[in-house]
Amino acid sequence: MTTPHVALVARRVPSRPSNMRLDSGDSMPIVTDHVKVATRGDCDIHDLTDAVAALVRRHGFREGQALVFVTGSTAGLTTIEHEPGLLQDIPALFERLAPKGAHYHHEDTWHDGNGHSHVRAALLGCSLTVPFADGQLLLGTWQQIVLIDF
Amino acid sequence: MTTPHVALVARRVPSRPSNMRLDSGDSMPIVTDHVKVATRGDCDIHDLTDAVAALVRRHGFREGQALVFVTGSTAGLTTIEHEPGLLQDIPALFERLAPKGAHYHHEDTWHDGNGHSHVRAALLGCSLTVPFADGQLLLGTWQQIVLIDF
Amino acid sequence: MTTPHVALVARRVPSRPSNMRLDSGDSMPIVTDHVKVATRGDCDIHDLTDAVAALVRRHGFREGQALVFVTGSTAGLTTIEHEPGLLQDIPALFERLAPKGAHYHHEDTWHDGNGHSHVRAALLGCSLTVPFADGQLLLGTWQQIVLIDF
Repeated sequence: MTTPHVALVARRVPSRPSNMRLDSGDSMPIVTDHVKVATRGDCDIHDLTDAVAALVRRHGFREGQALVFVTGSTAGLTTIEHEPGLLQDIPALFERLAPKGAHYHHEDTWHDGNGHSHVRAALLGCSLTVPFADGQLLLGTWQQIVLIDF
Repeated sequence: MTTPHVALVARRVPSRPSNMRLDSGDSMPIVTDHVKVATRGDCDIHDLTDAVAALVRRHGFREGQALVFVTGSTAGLTTIEHEPGLLQDIPALFERLAPKGAHYHHEDTWHDGNGHSHVRAALLGCSLTVPFADGQLLLGTWQQIVLIDF
Repeated sequence: MTTPHVALVARRVPSRPSNMRLDSGDSMPIVTDHVKVATRGDCDIHDLTDAVAALVRRHGFREGQALVFVTGSTAGLTTIEHEPGLLQDIPALFERLAPKGAHYHHEDTWHDGNGHSHVRAALLGCSLTVPFADGQLLLGTWQQIVLIDF
């Protein structure tokens, strides 16, 4: 189970008269939420797009930035066209860049067999920020937010 | 043509008496804009620095964050020293990491010959956030924001 | 010496009556600060976690996003488990991806012997955004923010 956080910095959909006074609770519409993803490692790729879009809607946000952040050091985030071919090509890329069978000194510390997962996650990165406007993530049609559990 | 979005979260240059009451339109200065870049693919590298800096000025922003985000799944963003040598070295790097001539399963789906572009873009990433203060992007002198159309 | 900037967009800990009127200085709690890190290059890895967490506390922020950004084009940012094994594995990864001894056209421009540093930094990326809530960075126990000076 991986539980990426989604932090939204946004302009809310106006729901009150615009001359209404703001208090400090309204002045900075930041919401930190999360989604739960059942992952099985080994370069498992999950499409988070619908989950992130649902959070933007649920919190009534209109325009802003959705920061997606994966807590932990063996998973990363990026965007891909989520189609069957790339679901094979992306793992093949990481196997070429940081092979599972290579020796990792991380093993000397923990003996948990996941040195390659740490190295791959460090390279890909754990944070991704997607802008949205009119309540819609500004992704391409063939561009999905994915979590890769290495 | 690639049209990266630029989303600014910022403190505006104060242009009114500081005791003036804020309405909801002013409380969250988020602006989402875009720039247009004519790209030709094949690891084409474009310097976006001036365009992003111009947006910060145009919207009268003083201190904040400029999120640059490329919509689509065959282009990415990073910063480099934009000089002729690296404009050859960066494409050479990606050719080594994800060769154009290799087999990609993505081709089995679309037959459009751009499997390497998708894989490279996923690795580099599509979002980059640059802070600014006093209306200036906090980049180094030899550090430019670049879009790479793979 | 590398001086990464830390830009915080956040909701401050409320310290005044919530019905108090906001002026433009309070309406957008954005703070841009920096930390100083003595780096020696050659894939030198520094743990910035405590420094970033200290800035969140110092500015009295409760919930928001900490953008860490490294100015310059030969260093990058990511998160890793900061343990002795990975401090060897990460440099080994970059040596494999962009070897120090390879020819870089960047050398033709500057003759400063750091073509590999530029290429590695471009690949890793110079910005990283970490959310925080209840004044705490939402990092895993074995996940530290690191600056790599290539």
